[in-house]
Parts: sequence; C-alpha cells; structure tokens
Amino acid sequence: MSTSVYPFGGKAAHDDPRQGDKTVTGGKGANLAEMASIGLPVPPGFTITTEQCLAYLAGDKTFDDSLRAAVASAVAHIEQSVGKTFGDAADPLLVSVRSGAAISMPGMMDTVLNLGLNDETVEGLAKTSGDARFAWDSYRRFVQMYSDVVLGVDHGLFEEALEITKEDNGYYADTELSAEEWQALVGEFKSIVERELGEPFPQDPQAQLWGAIGAVFDSWDTDRAKIYRRLNDIPHDMGTAVNVQAMVFGNMGDSSATGVAFTRDPATGERAYYGEYLINAQGEDVVAGIRTPQYLTKDAREAAGAKPLSMEEAMPDAYGELARVFDLLESHYKDMQDIEFTVERGKLWMLQTRTGKRTAKAALKMAVDMVGEGLIDEKEAVRRVDPMALDQLLHPTLDPKAKRNVLTTGLPASPGAAAGRIVLDADTAEQWSQRGDKVILVRVETSPEDIHGMHAAQGILTARGGMTSHAAVVARGMGRPCVSGASGVTIDREARTLRIGSQELKEGDEVTLDGANGQVMLGIVPTVKPELAGDFGTLMTWADKLRRMKVRTNAETPEDCRMARQFGAEGIGLCRTEHMFFDAGRISAVRQMILAEDESGRRKALDMLLPEQRADFTAIFEVMTGLPCTIRLLDPPLHEFLPTQDADFEELADATGLGVDHLKRRAGELHEFNPMLGHRGCRLGITFPEIYEMQARAIFEAACAVQKESGEAPLPEIMIPLVATKRELELLRALVDRVAAEVFEEQGERVDYLVGTMIELPRAALMAGEIANHGEFFSFGTNDLTQTTLGVSRDDSARFLAPYVDKGIFPRDPFVSLDIDGVGQLVEMATERGRATRPDIKLGICGEHGGDPASIAFCEKVGLDYVSASPYRVPIARLAAAQAALKD
Amino acid sequence: MSTSVYPFGGKAAHDDPRQGDKTVTGGKGANLAEMASIGLPVPPGFTITTEQCLAYLAGDKTFDDSLRAAVASAVAHIEQSVGKTFGDAADPLLVSVRSGAAISMPGMMDTVLNLGLNDETVEGLAKTSGDARFAWDSYRRFVQMYSDVVLGVDHGLFEEALEITKEDNGYYADTELSAEEWQALVGEFKSIVERELGEPFPQDPQAQLWGAIGAVFDSWDTDRAKIYRRLNDIPHDMGTAVNVQAMVFGNMGDSSATGVAFTRDPATGERAYYGEYLINAQGEDVVAGIRTPQYLTKDAREAAGAKPLSMEEAMPDAYGELARVFDLLESHYKDMQDIEFTVERGKLWMLQTRTGKRTAKAALKMAVDMVGEGLIDEKEAVRRVDPMALDQLLHPTLDPKAKRNVLTTGLPASPGAAAGRIVLDADTAEQWSQRGDKVILVRVETSPEDIHGMHAAQGILTARGGMTSHAAVVARGMGRPCVSGASGVTIDREARTLRIGSQELKEGDEVTLDGANGQVMLGIVPTVKPELAGDFGTLMTWADKLRRMKVRTNAETPEDCRMARQFGAEGIGLCRTEHMFFDAGRISAVRQMILAEDESGRRKALDMLLPEQRADFTAIFEVMTGLPCTIRLLDPPLHEFLPTQDADFEELADATGLGVDHLKRRAGELHEFNPMLGHRGCRLGITFPEIYEMQARAIFEAACAVQKESGEAPLPEIMIPLVATKRELELLRALVDRVAAEVFEEQGERVDYLVGTMIELPRAALMAGEIANHGEFFSFGTNDLTQTTLGVSRDDSARFLAPYVDKGIFPRDPFVSLDIDGVGQLVEMATERGRATRPDIKLGICGEHGGDPASIAFCEKVGLDYVSASPYRVPIARLAAAQAALKD
Repeated sequence: MSTSVYPFGGKAAHDDPRQGDKTVTGGKGANLAEMASIGLPVPPGFTITTEQCLAYLAGDKTFDDSLRAAVASAVAHIEQSVGKTFGDAADPLLVSVRSGAAISMPGMMDTVLNLGLNDETVEGLAKTSGDARFAWDSYRRFVQMYSDVVLGVDHGLFEEALEITKEDNGYYADTELSAEEWQALVGEFKSIVERELGEPFPQDPQAQLWGAIGAVFDSWDTDRAKIYRRLNDIPHDMGTAVNVQAMVFGNMGDSSATGVAFTRDPATGERAYYGEYLINAQGEDVVAGIRTPQYLTKDAREAAGAKPLSMEEAMPDAYGELARVFDLLESHYKDMQDIEFTVERGKLWMLQTRTGKRTAKAALKMAVDMVGEGLIDEKEAVRRVDPMALDQLLHPTLDPKAKRNVLTTGLPASPGAAAGRIVLDADTAEQWSQRGDKVILVRVETSPEDIHGMHAAQGILTARGGMTSHAAVVARGMGRPCVSGASGVTIDREARTLRIGSQELKEGDEVTLDGANGQVMLGIVPTVKPELAGDFGTLMTWADKLRRMKVRTNAETPEDCRMARQFGAEGIGLCRTEHMFFDAGRISAVRQMILAEDESGRRKALDMLLPEQRADFTAIFEVMTGLPCTIRLLDPPLHEFLPTQDADFEELADATGLGVDHLKRRAGELHEFNPMLGHRGCRLGITFPEIYEMQARAIFEAACAVQKESGEAPLPEIMIPLVATKRELELLRALVDRVAAEVFEEQGERVDYLVGTMIELPRAALMAGEIANHGEFFSFGTNDLTQTTLGVSRDDSARFLAPYVDKGIFPRDPFVSLDIDGVGQLVEMATERGRATRPDIKLGICGEHGGDPASIAFCEKVGLDYVSASPYRVPIARLAAAQAALKD
Repeated sequence: MSTSVYPFGGKAAHDDPRQGDKTVTGGKGANLAEMASIGLPVPPGFTITTEQCLAYLAGDKTFDDSLRAAVASAVAHIEQSVGKTFGDAADPLLVSVRSGAAISMPGMMDTVLNLGLNDETVEGLAKTSGDARFAWDSYRRFVQMYSDVVLGVDHGLFEEALEITKEDNGYYADTELSAEEWQALVGEFKSIVERELGEPFPQDPQAQLWGAIGAVFDSWDTDRAKIYRRLNDIPHDMGTAVNVQAMVFGNMGDSSATGVAFTRDPATGERAYYGEYLINAQGEDVVAGIRTPQYLTKDAREAAGAKPLSMEEAMPDAYGELARVFDLLESHYKDMQDIEFTVERGKLWMLQTRTGKRTAKAALKMAVDMVGEGLIDEKEAVRRVDPMALDQLLHPTLDPKAKRNVLTTGLPASPGAAAGRIVLDADTAEQWSQRGDKVILVRVETSPEDIHGMHAAQGILTARGGMTSHAAVVARGMGRPCVSGASGVTIDREARTLRIGSQELKEGDEVTLDGANGQVMLGIVPTVKPELAGDFGTLMTWADKLRRMKVRTNAETPEDCRMARQFGAEGIGLCRTEHMFFDAGRISAVRQMILAEDESGRRKALDMLLPEQRADFTAIFEVMTGLPCTIRLLDPPLHEFLPTQDADFEELADATGLGVDHLKRRAGELHEFNPMLGHRGCRLGITFPEIYEMQARAIFEAACAVQKESGEAPLPEIMIPLVATKRELELLRALVDRVAAEVFEEQGERVDYLVGTMIELPRAALMAGEIANHGEFFSFGTNDLTQTTLGVSRDDSARFLAPYVDKGIFPRDPFVSLDIDGVGQLVEMATERGRATRPDIKLGICGEHGGDPASIAFCEKVGLDYVSASPYRVPIARLAAAQAALKD
C-alpha cells in the first residue's frame, strides 16, 4: 500500500515525489507542501490521499486501521510543530479540514474550520488567546459549519437563531456580539443539533476529525459535485484529498485579517496585485459575500473610489510580506497565482496557492506579457491559453456606439456581453432556456445549488458578493458574463419582480449585462464584431508557427467562408451541398426531382437546379481561390426535403400538375424507419447517378468560371459520402471523372481536383486499405462514425446520454468530444490502412469534433493532415492544433 | 501472358494443370480434356480460357493478335485430328461453339452448331456424307442458330418460315422435309437475315467463328445471366470459357442419335442409368423439349408404360458402349455424372460430362449409398450434400391420407409439394408473389426469360418438355417442385385461362403439385411433417461426429423449442423476451409500464407482468432441462409496444384511467427518429433498471421451479443487449447477480447461470477486451452488427440493396450471408480480444447468419463455440458446421 498520509510544514520532509503529484494529494495539498518546501509560512498539517477517498467510497465507507494510525502520527507532527495538543483542554490544537481535488472545483467541496473545539477546549482557547469573545465566536462557527457539512443539519436554523439574537440586541453586524452572547448562542446551536438529530453535538475531537474526513470524502459524490464535473469535463474517478491543517486565525482582533488575492488581475490580465481582504474575519467571510471586502492595494481602492482602507494602507508590514510572497510565487510557478492568506496578530500565513482561473482575455494578455517579461517562452504561452476560452473573445461585444440605458453598475466579475430575459431562480433559468429563451439569472447571491441555472443562462447578475464570490468565480470558469455585487438590485421573490436602480422590472423583462464594466442595461443592446488583432493576433501567430496540422472550416455560404478566412481558415473541409437545396427559391425543383417517377423526370428537375448550384459554388470559389475546398455531394435521405404540411403539398401539386394524393403517396413511399441508415449518401449517387452528375457539373463549371475570371481556381475536393465499400467509390469516382472531362472539353479550360470519400461508417474504416485505391483523400465524418460505432442516434440520445455521463458510462458526450477508445480506434485503423495503400493520401476530420481541443489532440497523435471546424471554432482549432503539436 | 487456348482430343497433350482448372477452362472444357485424357471418345477441339472472356469484356470487345494466332493453331489441331479442313469446299470441317463457365449455368449460355457451313461447304458436306438432306438441314439449323444467337435476329421469324413450309406441304414433323425443301428454306432464312440486318449472312467461316466466340463472351454479360448468378450466388467476375469442337452428327439418319443422361436418377438418387435420347436428332432437340424424347433403358420405358423403343433396345451396341462409359466416369469422378452424347452412324461420342445436379433427396441418398458402395468415405458424403438443399427435405410434404382431386399427371421433374394460385407468365408470378400470394407458374415450356418467375413461384408446371427440359433442370437447381410435360394442360394466354384434364381453370385458381409423382391437383392439399430418419438421420449422425461447433436454436416458445430439439438443437442461442411482451393478454400491462410517469408506476405494471414472464420461462425451461438457454433481456425501443390506433388508445385509457390525449402525448414523447439507434437494449436497463430486475427475477424463479420439479435445471445464460461499453455490462451484471442472490435466498434453491452480452455494435467489438472482464459469454448479434457496421437499416435497404448486388457492390445480401470482409473483421477482432482477457469465454452467433452455411464456415474459421439458428435451419447448421470443420 502506498503512503496514505503526507505531512507538510514544520519539520516535514516533503521529499516523496508523490506528495507533489496532484492526482495523489490534490491541488491544495500538493501546493501547500510545495510552498512549505520553498520556505513560505504555511501552517503545519497533512494531506490524506485521493486514493483513500476512492477506497472509502468504493467500500463500506469506513476507515481502516492503517489509515487511522497514519493520521494519528500526522496529528502528532502538527502538535510538535505548533507546540499544542489536539483535545488539550488547557491549550488545544485546532485544525481546519478541507477538501482538495486534483482539479480545482471552487465552492463544490465542504470545509470545516476550528475543529477540536468543545465545551472544555473552548475555555482553554479563551485563556491562551486572551480573548473569550474570539474563542466563543470560533466555537459557534465550528458548531454551525460542522453541523451543516458533517451532520447535515439545515444551516438556516443556525442563521435564524443568530438573526434573532442580533435583533433582540439591536445589533447590525456579527462583530457586535459579546463573548457571553456568543456563548449563549453556542448553547442554543447545540440544542438545535440535539433536537434535530436526537443526539448531542460530538464533543470528542477525534470523533469530530473522522466525521469531517468522511464528510469531505462523501462530498465527492454529491449531485452538485457530479454536475460540476460533468459541466467541466472532470472525470468522476479521481477522488478528493483531505487537508488537515493547524488553524490560524484572521479573526483575532484588528491586527488579524484574512484575504484572497491574485498575483495579476484575473479579469483583464493587468500586471497588478489584485484581491480583497477583511480585517478580523475568517476566510469563509470573504468568499461567502456576507461582508463586502476591502481592496488589497491603494491604487485599486482609489480607482474604485472606495473608502475602507486597503491592506497596503491598513497593514503595511503584513502587506509588504505578502507582496514579497506574490513575487516569489510567480517566479516559482511561472504563472499567475490565486492565493488565500491569513494574518494572525500581524503574522502572515499562506493557506493556499494555485494557478489562478482567468478570463480568456486575461489568459491571453498574461501569456503574451509573460513572454515579454522573459518568464515563459512562446511555446509555453501557447500552452497557457485554453482554446475553448477563446470562444469568449470571438463572439460579439456590446457596440460602444449603441445607446445604453444603464440601470445600475455592479462589479465587472466576468467579461463579455449578455442579453436576455430576467429569471429569478435556477430552475426557471433552465426551463426557459430549454424552450429557447435567452435568460439572465438574477440572484441576491449564488450558491452551488444554482449551477445548472448559471449554465443555462446567458449571464449572471448578483446583488451581493465581490469579484471572488461564488457567482464571479463560477461564471468566469464557465465563460459566462457576470456582474456581481450590484447593490442597486433588490428582488421580491414572492412577487417575481425586482427593482434595478429606479426601474421596476418583472421576471421575463429584457436586460443586457456588460461584464467588462459591470453595467446593467434595460433592453437588448446591439453588439459589434470582436477584435482579432493585438494579443490575440500575437498568440495566433505563435500558434501557427508551432502547429503541424492545417485548419479548415465547415462552411457553405460565401459569408461563412469570408468569416472563416478572417479567422484563419486555410480551406473548406466540409461544404454540405444539401443546405443549398433547402433554399426557398429552389425547394420546389428539389421536390419535383425527388417525386419524379423516373430518370427523365428527375433530369428535368435537375436541369432547373444546375444553374442555381453553379451559382452557389461560384460564389464560394470566388472567396476561396487558391485554397482546397472539400465539397460533399448530396448526403441526406431525400424525404428530408419533402413537404409535410398540406399547404406545401398543394403548392407542389400546382407546380407539378400531379395530384395531392399522388404526391402524398410518393412521399409515403419514401418514408424510412431509420433514415440515418437508409437511402442516403452515396446510395443516392449509385441509384440516381444523375443527381451527382448535376452536382459535379456545377462544381466544375463554377471552378472553370472562377479561374477564367480571376486567373486562379480553388482546388475542388469532391467528397463522396457514406461509402462502405471500395466499389461505391470506384463507380462514383468514374462518374465524377467523366463529368470533369466533359466540362473541361466544353469549357476549353481545366482545373485540378481530387476525388475522395468520407470515412463515416465502421466498414469504411475497416476497409480503408481497399477504399484508398480509389480515393485521393479521406475525411473522417466523426458525427456519423460516432452514431454507427456506438449505435447511438444523436437525435434520439437525449433521453439516456445525460444519465450515461452521470453514471460514468461515457466520460463525456461522445458527440462533443471524440470517443477515443472506440471511435478513435477506427480512425487510427483507417489512417494506417489508407496510408499503407496510398502513402500521400490526404487525411482530415470534418465532424464537429474538428473544433474540440481533446479531439484535435487525438488527430495530431494519429497524424491527420488537417482539421475542419465551424468558422467561430477556427481559432480554437488553430490554438488546439499548436498545443497538440507541442505535446508530441 | 498465360496460355490462352487449350486443345483437347486427338493427339493433344492434356498435360498443363491449368487445363484441368475449371476457373481457367470452365467446367465443360476441363471435363472434355479429362475425358479425352482417360481415353474416352471425345471429338477433338479446343478451349479458349475464361481469362480471355474477362479481357474481352473489360476492353473494347476485340480480339488481339496473339489470341487469333493461338486459335488458328488450335483449329489446325482439329483439322489434323479429323482429316478435314475448316472452310474446305470439298470436305469441310464443321465445329460447334459452346460456352462453358466454371460453375454450370444451364440454359443461360448460347451455343452454335454446324459452324463452317456456307453456300459452298454445304455442297461438300452433302457429297462426303452422301446425304444432301442432312447437309441442308444442318445448314438451315446453323443459319437459324447463328442468326439468333450471334446476329440477334428474332428466332420467331425462322420458325414461322419453317411452319409455313410444313403447312404448305402438309407435313407434321421436320423430318418429313426433303433436301430441296431445306435448301429452299436456307435461301429464305438468308433473305430474312439480309432484310433484318441490311447485310447478308456471313459466308466466311473465320468470320463465323469469331462472331460466335464473341457472342459466347457477350452472353456472360446478359441480364438473364446476371440474374441467374445473383439468384445462385455465382460471382460476376469469373467469365466463361469457349469450347470449339469438331461436329459429330446425331442427325445422320437412323443409326445416329443424341441424348442426355445421368449415371443415377437425379430426382430420387436410385442407382439406375437415367436419361433420354432421340434418334436422328441434334442435341438441342432433346433439351429444347420440341420432340418428346425416348427412354434410355428398357426398365425405364416399361415402368413408364411407353411404347417408343429405349436406346438399350434400339441401339444395343452403342448403348453397351455408353453403359461402359457411365461406369468408367463414376469410378473416375466418384460422383454421379450428367452426360451429353451423340451417336454418329453407330459410333458413340462424348460431348460433355459434369457432376450432375440433383434434388436434396437424391443428394442424400447418393451420398449415403456411395459410402455403402465404398466409392467415398463418410467425410466425403458429408461434403457432398448442400446444407441449403436440406431445406427441401425439412419442409412438409403432401399428406398421403389427404383426399387428392388429381386433374392430370405429368413428369415428376423436381420433388416436393407446392400449392398456390395459378399464374400464366413470369412477370405476373413475380408481382403476385411480391404482394404476398403463393403462386404456381404454369407455362407451355419455360425459357431463360422465365427465371425470375420460377424463382418467385412455389412450383412450376409445364405442358411440354422432359425430365431434362429447361424447366426441370432449373427447378431442381432452385429446389422448386416441378411437374413437366403435363400434356393434359392447355393454356389460353389471351383469355388467361387454362384447361387441366377436364377442368376449366382461370389465372388465380388454386392448384397443388406433387413433384414426387407428377400429380397436379385441384385446390390446396394438406401436408405432413418431414421424415427425419433414414438417409437423413444417417448423414446427420456422420455430420455430428465431424463438427466441432455446437448448434443451438433461436426460439421463444415451448413449441419452437420442442421442434428445434427434434432437429438436433443443443440449447437456445437466442430467446427474445420482447416477443412475449406482444402477447394479447399482457400488452395492456406492458403499455401501462411504458407510459408510467415514474418508477413506481412502472413497478406496478411490472408486478403484473412478473408471473406471466415466469410462466413463459418455466414452459421453455421444462423443454430445455440440462441445456444452455441464452435469454436476452428486453431489447427493442419501447414505443414499438405502443398503440397506434385510436381504438387501442381508448382501451388503454379505460385500463389506466388516463386520458387519451395524455396517452397520445406520452406516446409522442417516445417517438424516435432512428429507433434502431435509440433508447433500446441495455439503455433501457440502465435508465429503467426495474424492467431488467423483473425479467431476471422471472428467469431465476422459473429455473429454480423447474429444478425443484424435475431435479434438473437448464443453464440460463442471461444476455445484456446492445452493450457499447464495459461499464454498461458491469452495472447490469451487478443488477442480475443481486436479483439472483435474492431469489436463491427466497427459494432456498440455487441454479448455475452465466451473464454475458451481445456483441452487436462496432464499439463492443473494438472494446471486447475490456467488456470480457464483465461477461462470461459473447453472442454475436450479426443482424445489428451488420446494420451498424455498414450503416444500413435492414428495414430501409430494399430500395438500394438489389441494385447494389447487381452492380457487384455487395457480393450477396449482407443480411443473408455475413459480410466477412467488413463485419467479419469485427467478429474476429472481438473473438481475439475477448479470449485474450478471458480464455474460456463462451462465443457464439445468434444473428440470422447462424443458419447460413458460408457464415457458419466463417464462424468455424474464427473458432466460435456454437452457432444458433431458427428451428428449421438447425439441421442445415449441423451439416454446414461439419463441412466447415472438414475444411479446416
């Protein structure tokens, strides 16, 4: 059995490499040990490994003797370091118990502070601290937190009791309560526990400790933790570590404080210490948003026009020490750090450091700045930015010239613009969003229970809480714009109304948020296109130097093509010709073709469509001259184009001279039980070759015309869909070649072109060696390949896919991120077999996975030549491709 | 380039092994050479290889110089052997040109006789034969045949001219025409050709020869040849050889004759020479059914009560020689032979030998008899019988005790009983059959154009033609019962009526045929079960000794289980529990379960279903004690069980107390776009575990009950369908194990059982190594595996599958015979990976391919433990499994 408990701080060795491995000790535990090892002031403690969590959850939720022994020895390490004894009535050691998973999950895990207090040790603490009020406040906090988190007592009961005490005494703030009043409240809290649970609050510190450890372990498996992991693609089988650490107190009077900070501004990326602190408070007070925290630096305070003194002004010594630690941490970790600290009677203690979450804009700026500062190199800068986060930067922001009816201003907690209808709770947010509404979730403050609503919303607005409040942290992580602490907002949940500034609004009214400056505006404010120069452009240049794979786009309109080229697309990876068939002006001809009784009827309708298709391709090719353009011939089952409404049938009857009954009968004949697996793709080309002939002709005529006009042609790559056998490709390639020869002869002009196929059926992947004899390129159609390999219809999967991800059957939605274990095997097989037959075969991916970073990394690993993504995803793909190339 | 032309007969060497390879020289060419090499009297000739046919068809349909040179040299070989010269006006060499593919395709390929005749050589022939009538008759036959087959002139025009001549002269038979009359007819025939084609009939023998060779090659690509190959699973890329051979004449007067014969009776398998001959006739006269041929042996003639002398009586010397040849051929080929011969002025010549087609009954009898005779061993006997042919024997025959209203009796041309509605042409046969009618095709005689109708029919009745007529040969090949030469049948095609004996019938009336005795009966005659003892039992015993794989059955009723055990099934390979859910008595409970809003509603309905399911399994287990029974838990999408008719909704509304609208809405919610890939299989078990719990409980309770009662239990093998990931199987296996433990505890009884999965998704095959950790067996569900691997919905494939087979995209319907190249790879992969994880994993196949011999051979090759087939296919599978084991 590997080591189950790692001590840190004091005289701990910190010499086992497993202690630095976040998968073993969690992010918090690993970083506490690392800070201690480089000499920073860390209260001594120990970490119980994630492996123990998994063993506990997999078993019968008990602790074995070897773990108990290791914990006892680690408690002794703390006792020796601080010179106090756990449970000692005279001078008790108190500890905190915190969770810490390998990947930070803010707000999701529960924490217990001041553990070790009971009716006896509280007296000892009062004596040694010389502050009875502090001791009883600490005890009541412990009872409250432990009862909530470990014992499952509704925390509202304690808050209610506290409120009553405050009201009875006419107090406004908690700080006004005396030692005796806190003591009385502890008694009341303990009665609440006994009343609720039928047994008294545990007095034995050992029982308290094991209860808290178990509660941390259990919190890994709560629904909200699972949902967070699902939303954030965190695997369910990692487990959490437990950190037990000697308490230090930010609430020991006015020379004590507690705070959270970032070494740079996490919203903008500015190089300035950034954070908040509260004097005479414990850590939870800052993030919980109950008291409004003060600024860290004088500059920040002044910029905000705030009165309460900054830490720089109020505690210059401790602040100076903190600034030294900031610089030390940045040069050690070579990245922006997110820090928790406590000042106990003037002495600074570090409670946590971790790489700080940041907005996409900040990530970009920091990465580019740090290269300038010589802290990291270009490769590292490219690695630093999460490609998916670019999504925030690529989408429109509020038009600066648009008129804004600003109702109020809060904190700019997460950047970006969001507009939608007001909703007042998370469930409503989810329901309205599911029915297609864009919503803005408005809450006094958010809690982990709101996560599903935050996810469903366009943006979040809170009345309370700072830049590091739950709402702010989670919104930044999700890429949702957020305005927090907008004190001008008051909510009447009963009446489902709210007042913002002077304006009365009700649920459903429209507002716009600007996460960049904290403004809340009435109605929908227009937006403008994103800025693609500056830091963004710099980083993209570095990424382009580093990546091996080309990036193309999936597009079928000249507008999309133009947009994609602006975003850096190097060609079209998938032009779906069927989208053109749905155009209102030509759907009637399409329907006539489909319902024709024979080839001559089809040809008549196709003759009407030819000039339209030629115009489609000409417009696209004009944008894409000199670049490869993969055009997929008609793919979907024909009945998708058919009318379903009586009025449409009547219109078609008029157009064709055929009776409505006749048309309905023909439409009925085309019905399929499983259209995904039906008469579609190249099966249409085999049975109705005239359709593909028309499309090939339109492509070649357009390419010749563009070449004549501009002197340069695109490289059409004609793609035959849904191939399962070499013979299909052989037959249809012959058809395309024949049409090409005809057109070139007629036009006296020729263009280069390729013919290839999608690999989107398992059989095509298995037979890729044979198929490659007839095709010059493969494009992996991983949407359909996923559907067939997994036997899952994307349209029908909603009813079981979410439970499947929750139960760990699929780690992620396989339509979002490629199923590398299964579908990936087929892609790899087809790649190898295709190349064995035709070493220079061009290989790409055009499923939606082409815009997913994890899938792109896989494409790099198997050596594809390019990925193709929707226009907005092109920069994401460029960056992800560069990161993938760096991995290899 | 390999040798393109092989001479045979005369002084030819016959020493190149390629000459004996049917794929090179065709069946006819290879056997002619072989007969010549063992000293039998074969007219000299040569064979042009199949490779030349393929080259000709693939190219521009011309002959290259090297082929022309090889043919010239081979013609010289014939000239030297017979001492005549091709085109010599004084004493011309005449030749026949015949096709000959590797696999015999009776009636499909065209033949030209007497080639080399023209206006000059006919005179030479008249002189050397001393028979001007014979010479001119031969010439007119040549012009007629050549014009039809090579030049494409309608043969009806020649027949009409001949009929007019006969009528003008008051003749009944062709033999009554004089030399001068034939000569005049030749003139008329040539004018017909010139009138039809605008150019004269070719006089140059070389031009005639190359024209005929080209026509044989072209005939490989005719539609009727393609259809025959598709129906008979003959590949399209084999090509046909051409045999050019010196003519011998069965029409040189009364000491000449021609005949066809089998060394044993091809209908019954009796060891007796069997055949027909005609005096003074050419070969085509016998098979064309124009003159009614005479019996070969005295016994046969007497048994039939026929008057015209048998060959044994009419030509005792030639018959004696023929009998010697029969015995020599059987001992040489060790199998029954199908022979064509000609007697020219008393001398016997062999024109063809090949392994004779036979009925299933005959194949069985011959195989068993030949083992008794010491001609072959048991292994060879097992190899000799086509497993698919057993189908004929396993199906009911006419009840001997039933009353038969016999209208007339014809020849027992192909055995078995067939009943259905009369149809008078092949197209009607096909149409009526497609709409679900069983039809009997009634024709004066059949021709290759009728093949699609014969295939569509239950049985065939002809008014003319013998046991070796086109109808008889093709019907036996197809396993269709046939009564031929029923001269009591007259057809009025205009009126669409017919008279059989004294009865007036019209198209659509019902008749029954008994192919075993030639009877034609009015109406539908009842049938009885087949006899499974005798030769059948003997052969099956030998097969069982030789096979390695077990054979199970797909069955879900006690009746089917009983039937399958009689047929030799060794367990159940697939019991589809959903079939039980459709039962009228319980569909309402099933629907209540599906439409329930929550788990408790579902459990209520499931409680009603539990006793029913338990009774189902008890009844099955009582039949299958001691045997493994693979039971698949609920698989299909739930909406398959839902009502679609308003009346059903109303009934359900009454039963559940829920409104019709509510039920319709729920049913609508369950609609799926691609139900094949939707919420079905184990996805139901994961989302609604209570359904699988009920089923598992029913299985274990039934197994315990049967064990209590009979002292012996079956071995339930609980199969989880549609698994794609190890986790699904892990979760559901835990569920089954839990229910098993509960039931065993309650019952105080335990039974052995296994839990495994279907491998029916590509991902399951790819991940078989992981999945095998949680399952004790795999059963390949090749129906669904084919659907997903090929991306073809079986229900929707009708519109493109036939053209796909015609175009050679799929060699056969992949739902009938496993796609070994594609789907087979996945089966092989899963087998290897599953065994690597769990060496003793039990592997079987339960798709319908489990009853297809080619697929069974593949299962043997990859080493599956068993195959499972529908009850009637069990004997087929047993025999095919034995043959497969012999191959290895």
